[in-house]
Amino acid sequence: MNYHNGVMEDHVYKQIELTGTSTTSIEDAVQRAIKRAHKTVRNMSWFQVVETRGSIDSGQIQHWQVSIKVGFALENS
Amino acid sequence: MNYHNGVMEDHVYKQIELTGTSTTSIEDAVQRAIKRAHKTVRNMSWFQVVETRGSIDSGQIQHWQVSIKVGFALENS
Amino acid sequence: MNYHNGVMEDHVYKQIELTGTSTTSIEDAVQRAIKRAHKTVRNMSWFQVVETRGSIDSGQIQHWQVSIKVGFALENS
Amino acid sequence: MNYHNGVMEDHVYKQIELTGTSTTSIEDAVQRAIKRAHKTVRNMSWFQVVETRGSIDSGQIQHWQVSIKVGFALENS
Amino acid sequence: MNYHNGVMEDHVYKQIELTGTSTTSIEDAVQRAIKRAHKTVRNMSWFQVVETRGSIDSGQIQHWQVSIKVGFALENS
Amino acid sequence: MNYHNGVMEDHVYKQIELTGTSTTSIEDAVQRAIKRAHKTVRNMSWFQVVETRGSIDSGQIQHWQVSIKVGFALENS
Amino acid sequence: MNYHNGVMEDHVYKQIELTGTSTTSIEDAVQRAIKRAHKTVRNMSWFQVVETRGSIDSGQIQHWQVSIKVGFALENS
Amino acid sequence: MNYHNGVMEDHVYKQIELTGTSTTSIEDAVQRAIKRAHKTVRNMSWFQVVETRGSIDSGQIQHWQVSIKVGFALENS
Amino acid sequence: MNYHNGVMEDHVYKQIELTGTSTTSIEDAVQRAIKRAHKTVRNMSWFQVVETRGSIDSGQIQHWQVSIKVGFALENS
Amino acid sequence: MNYHNGVMEDHVYKQIELTGTSTTSIEDAVQRAIKRAHKTVRNMSWFQVVETRGSIDSGQIQHWQVSIKVGFALENS
Amino acid sequence: MNYHNGVMEDHVYKQIELTGTSTTSIEDAVQRAIKRAHKTVRNMSWFQVVETRGSIDSGQIQHWQVSIKVGFALENS
Amino acid sequence: MNYHNGVMEDHVYKQIELTGTSTTSIEDAVQRAIKRAHKTVRNMSWFQVVETRGSIDSGQIQHWQVSIKVGFALENS
Repeated sequence: MNYHNGVMEDHVYKQIELTGTSTTSIEDAVQRAIKRAHKTVRNMSWFQVVETRGSIDSGQIQHWQVSIKVGFALENS
Repeated sequence: MNYHNGVMEDHVYKQIELTGTSTTSIEDAVQRAIKRAHKTVRNMSWFQVVETRGSIDSGQIQHWQVSIKVGFALENS
Repeated sequence: MNYHNGVMEDHVYKQIELTGTSTTSIEDAVQRAIKRAHKTVRNMSWFQVVETRGSIDSGQIQHWQVSIKVGFALENS
Repeated sequence: MNYHNGVMEDHVYKQIELTGTSTTSIEDAVQRAIKRAHKTVRNMSWFQVVETRGSIDSGQIQHWQVSIKVGFALENS
Repeated sequence: MNYHNGVMEDHVYKQIELTGTSTTSIEDAVQRAIKRAHKTVRNMSWFQVVETRGSIDSGQIQHWQVSIKVGFALENS
Repeated sequence: MNYHNGVMEDHVYKQIELTGTSTTSIEDAVQRAIKRAHKTVRNMSWFQVVETRGSIDSGQIQHWQVSIKVGFALENS
Repeated sequence: MNYHNGVMEDHVYKQIELTGTSTTSIEDAVQRAIKRAHKTVRNMSWFQVVETRGSIDSGQIQHWQVSIKVGFALENS
Repeated sequence: MNYHNGVMEDHVYKQIELTGTSTTSIEDAVQRAIKRAHKTVRNMSWFQVVETRGSIDSGQIQHWQVSIKVGFALENS
Repeated sequence: MNYHNGVMEDHVYKQIELTGTSTTSIEDAVQRAIKRAHKTVRNMSWFQVVETRGSIDSGQIQHWQVSIKVGFALENS
Repeated sequence: MNYHNGVMEDHVYKQIELTGTSTTSIEDAVQRAIKRAHKTVRNMSWFQVVETRGSIDSGQIQHWQVSIKVGFALENS
Repeated sequence: MNYHNGVMEDHVYKQIELTGTSTTSIEDAVQRAIKRAHKTVRNMSWFQVVETRGSIDSGQIQHWQVSIKVGFALENS
Repeated sequence: MNYHNGVMEDHVYKQIELTGTSTTSIEDAVQRAIKRAHKTVRNMSWFQVVETRGSIDSGQIQHWQVSIKVGFALENS
């Protein structure tokens, strides 16, 4: 939970939990989750990884599934 | 714990936390929470029990109160 | 997780930890613990499941052993 | 921890996570988060503090940042 | 768990869990729980906050509900 | 972790983690996991539920997925 | 939480939390706590170490302070 | 966190814990653990990262050491 | 863990754990810990409360003892 | 989870969970678990204590029951 | 906590907590924290990732912020 | 986290994390860590065991590795 910055105003923040998936890396899975959320959520400013999982097929990692909490300021707060 | 899936596509998922109540069982409380959420949330595909509580009246369990995280794919993700 | 109440007065509550056992179900084990405590403890109003265990005999569940915290208002508090 | 209620009906509840900020106290940060959420969320009935943080400037606490889970009954549940 | 002091004798301590309520602050809720327990428990020497919750009414915090573990030396231990 | 009994000998125990599935209940999912393990593991004497999850289809619980740790005495230990 | 035994009857158990102290060892601190509780509590059958702490004086351990949960069957349960 | 599956049958799963090592990345360490286990374990279908550590030599990361739980269906379950 | 700000440069941060004490409030205990650390530590920018405890004398709270993690940028990092 | 050493090769490690028992000490219970496992498991190189419990008879500790995770390199990994 | 090696001498180790930042990856953030600490801390031999967070700007990950515990032998210990 | 004593003054405390090693016992490993720290740290007054691990060689425990948090008052605080 953080939401900090040079100039911290008296905002109220909301956190939501997302899971991104990627065939390549943990970082890519997180970026995909954030990119998708960016379509509808404004002001996202930080995230925290809460779980890293994945699916396996024939001894190969198929998908990385990374769950994050994302925080964003509520408008007019 | 997951053990899942046939064809996992590159989706982004969101998790929400709900609490269902029931006078009869833990399973019923969970089903009621999911049934209610189904009115407005599409694509729910899994849940995890995060807390099991209840209220007591005169030495009898009155309500089971079971909190779950529910995951669902975001559309067009 | 709480979802509580109509008229909450300024009480002080105490929590105790109990373990109920049952050959049939988790719910029954909890109810047995509460029923036994009801003999000597007044005003029990809520519980929380803190652990679910059991004993096994010959590949069959013998007893469910469910531990709960039970809260009750102290009198004259 | 719950100490709940008089007349508990068979509701389904949802929990959301918010972070309130305050220059003065933990209590004020929580109240600000709830007050802001009250603009758009009905029926909020309980909260739980999940994290207490803050920012520091020149050896002085600048903002308290308190994260809470807030629960509310879903309508027509 | 602490129970420490200048002159630590070989005592045995017991911990109990209480929840105090207050309309004003976390500190007041804790003090109320301890004050109530003081009526029947001697030698209380330390506490630890284990959970901070509250009830909400119409977007206002109604009660702070703070759970603590309280430790005290058993007599003749 | 438990391994207890009237006559506790100096055994060494091993714990394994299993996940049972059921369309009906948590208890059934646990029993199915234990029953399956009983085919190859002797002396199972206790279990602990470590996670309760499930899959959802069209707003209905499809499978309960309950993970347990199961303990058993190693022979000649 | 365990309370298990060859012949497990349908008991209800209670757990209490104690802290024993010792100048010599962890094991001694636990034994002292149990010995003291034995004066007033019957049927204690198991314990679990929940915290191990100690006090220091001049670079030497002064007291081990070991907190345990102790379980015992409630009579007539 | 799971988001799984098309056709979930009534299987029983087992989880094992492995640690993979890599001089290059977390992802590589996980893949190496899975690849090695694939020699003797069939049907592995998911994993969860439970710990990420590493060794350091002269201010440089020498090895990433990533521990995972891996789940697989027991045959004839 | 947070270290955030409008203009986040590529810093490395260190966290230390402190405990402040106060006879009046949690907030005051935290401020006292930070004020004392400010004598020797530069650039402190955030804190997180990790434990809230206290001492009791004759049924009254004597001291609040609040432990925090404090983060600060290492110079020339 | 550790497995570290002067010369760390690219091994894959497995962890298993065991519980040793002893009438005398925690250390002895751990040594007994490791000694028993040594009959069938090669290359064990580290352990971590995950739980310390025990049984009580007539106010005396009967058995220490200490659960450990033990790590060992998989051959040809 | 690990600090292990082929030839383990009777050392005493200290752990410190650092946070590294990177615009590219988790691994790079960890390496940067270790590299900076290497300027003043000798003998660092292992690390453990304790938290993975990040900042977001316009739907893009801006910085990875990875917190680690780093262990090193105290000299002359 | 404790910092307790007959006469508790308004001190600020710092906690550091150490790991002691011993070929004989947990207690000895803790004492060795404290003894080493005593060379450079004044006023150490309490500790808490946070992890107990060890190394194994040929089925024998080689070293106990016990991690502790140690608290001490900052001077002039």
